[in-house]
Amino acid sequence: MIRIGIAGYGNLGRGVEAAVKNSDDMELVAVFTRRDPESVKIKTEKAGVYGFDKIADFKDKIDVIVNCGGSATDLPKTTPMIAEIFSVIDSFDTHARIPEHFANVDAKAKAGNNIAIISVGWDPGLFSLNRLYMNAVLPNGKDYTFWGRGVSQGHSDAIRRIDGVVDARQYTVPVESAVERVRNGENPELTTREKHTRECYVVVEEGADKARIENEIKTMPNYFSDYDTTVNFISLEELKANHSGIPHGGSVIRSGCTGFDLGTKHTIEYSLKLESNPEFTGSVLAAYARAAYKLKANGESGCRTVFDIAPALLVDMDGDEIRAHML
Amino acid sequence: MIRIGIAGYGNLGRGVEAAVKNSDDMELVAVFTRRDPESVKIKTEKAGVYGFDKIADFKDKIDVIVNCGGSATDLPKTTPMIAEIFSVIDSFDTHARIPEHFANVDAKAKAGNNIAIISVGWDPGLFSLNRLYMNAVLPNGKDYTFWGRGVSQGHSDAIRRIDGVVDARQYTVPVESAVERVRNGENPELTTREKHTRECYVVVEEGADKARIENEIKTMPNYFSDYDTTVNFISLEELKANHSGIPHGGSVIRSGCTGFDLGTKHTIEYSLKLESNPEFTGSVLAAYARAAYKLKANGESGCRTVFDIAPALLVDMDGDEIRAHML
Repeated sequence: MIRIGIAGYGNLGRGVEAAVKNSDDMELVAVFTRRDPESVKIKTEKAGVYGFDKIADFKDKIDVIVNCGGSATDLPKTTPMIAEIFSVIDSFDTHARIPEHFANVDAKAKAGNNIAIISVGWDPGLFSLNRLYMNAVLPNGKDYTFWGRGVSQGHSDAIRRIDGVVDARQYTVPVESAVERVRNGENPELTTREKHTRECYVVVEEGADKARIENEIKTMPNYFSDYDTTVNFISLEELKANHSGIPHGGSVIRSGCTGFDLGTKHTIEYSLKLESNPEFTGSVLAAYARAAYKLKANGESGCRTVFDIAPALLVDMDGDEIRAHML
Repeated sequence: MIRIGIAGYGNLGRGVEAAVKNSDDMELVAVFTRRDPESVKIKTEKAGVYGFDKIADFKDKIDVIVNCGGSATDLPKTTPMIAEIFSVIDSFDTHARIPEHFANVDAKAKAGNNIAIISVGWDPGLFSLNRLYMNAVLPNGKDYTFWGRGVSQGHSDAIRRIDGVVDARQYTVPVESAVERVRNGENPELTTREKHTRECYVVVEEGADKARIENEIKTMPNYFSDYDTTVNFISLEELKANHSGIPHGGSVIRSGCTGFDLGTKHTIEYSLKLESNPEFTGSVLAAYARAAYKLKANGESGCRTVFDIAPALLVDMDGDEIRAHML
């Protein structure tokens, strides 16, 4: 059994907990939290909840820590720290800072003789893998990534910070006609506005100025001003009834040409339709925890990304079984 | 530059030749053929054409041989033989014999200190990879593979062997309503007949008995009798004008559940739309030739499948570049 620890118990941590429960070769040993451990109730009966400061005490009791902190301030500090003690997986997604994060984690993982795999999930993660495979087999081509229909936590939070807003949910929606053009191999040039729209469901305080709030949303730089945005004011009851899920998904599509004169066209598409973003992401993290365990057992150490992991390491089967059942 | 040799110069060999031409880090050195080398004209000016018996003379002039022979009788003999001299890639697709082929190739590749990668292409190959990744991240689920719309060479050949048939083209077509049910996560039980139909375009000799030919096609065991088959008699001119391409494609779709009580549903779909099956397959083989070259340069030897190859090995980029551009 691969002994798993979870650092951070929000939506993603709960997703990892479920994925571990559903994996026959893994067991959850402990959840580490910055909250009062007494206040955190987990679903796994045999596992304990401990303060984050107790993590080092589990050095010989846990094989891999799945670090479920946030990319902005948490993971850059905690993943290197954990990598010195345990093998560790994270879902770091601040693109510009990946080289720096990789270098920091690599140094600590090597010092501790552990394996770390960073930026695991679906984007970055499975979408990145597909971009790579598509580029490898169709080097002459162009790829597109569409996200949604799904809830963007960051955009929902941005709306909630507006004065007079009680709660909000924002859906990122791919423009279907743009997806169709890409799917047909047209390789169009698409602006930000032409690729996605933004759909907002907003609950406001009684008597709030809806026109002002709608305008503040639609003109918000970076988040909404470059998109066609629709704002729907709804009641708190309706928000809870119809928008409490965290669905997401999207597609990576690449069209490219082969042939001596590049005259032959091909299209590859990879798409996800997810009822729960954190549960699916948690399942991806659990699969890569298995790979980290195997690599460390094989004497390897250092930081990796999904690009460095041979697919066979992700499943609980040996080579003969995989070749017999999957090839 | 990775120095490539191609063994066998049919449609697949020509596809590999084009893929090598379109890869900046590869050059074609030689094509080996069982035909009279004088009779074989290739498109790459700097490469030569030689008899298959001359292959060993190129031991120090070629890094990787892409073996483009057929799975039935050729590859089981030639891939092990080549693996003792060169690193080698093949597209062996006789499923039941993969364990035996793997073992034979592994022994010879180890003896020769070479890397062999077998069963490379899209199915087996990219579809297998996707089945594995999907199973790893959604262990509780069910996957489906649909092929087409595309030309099946084997089924076209089977029709051509019928008395009175001049030429024929057979398309395998997925049943769209079945694909939709799978895409919607219904996890249906589907019979062979419910998954694919077979569309035949047949040219017959003047005065041939069309009713007899149609009946022979539709009742042919293994090939057609388990499917809803349509037979269209057309002229040779029409066949050449409208059915001379070798398109193919298909989809792998997996629906699965996550969550502590498996109450959350997700669907992953990978699909290919290929104007030329051999050119696309040739491009996949070329990418794995690159991986074989890197693994051998790293001191490894033995037989591998796509499951054993870390994705980063497939592209002509180093780790920093891949993380910066693909993650």
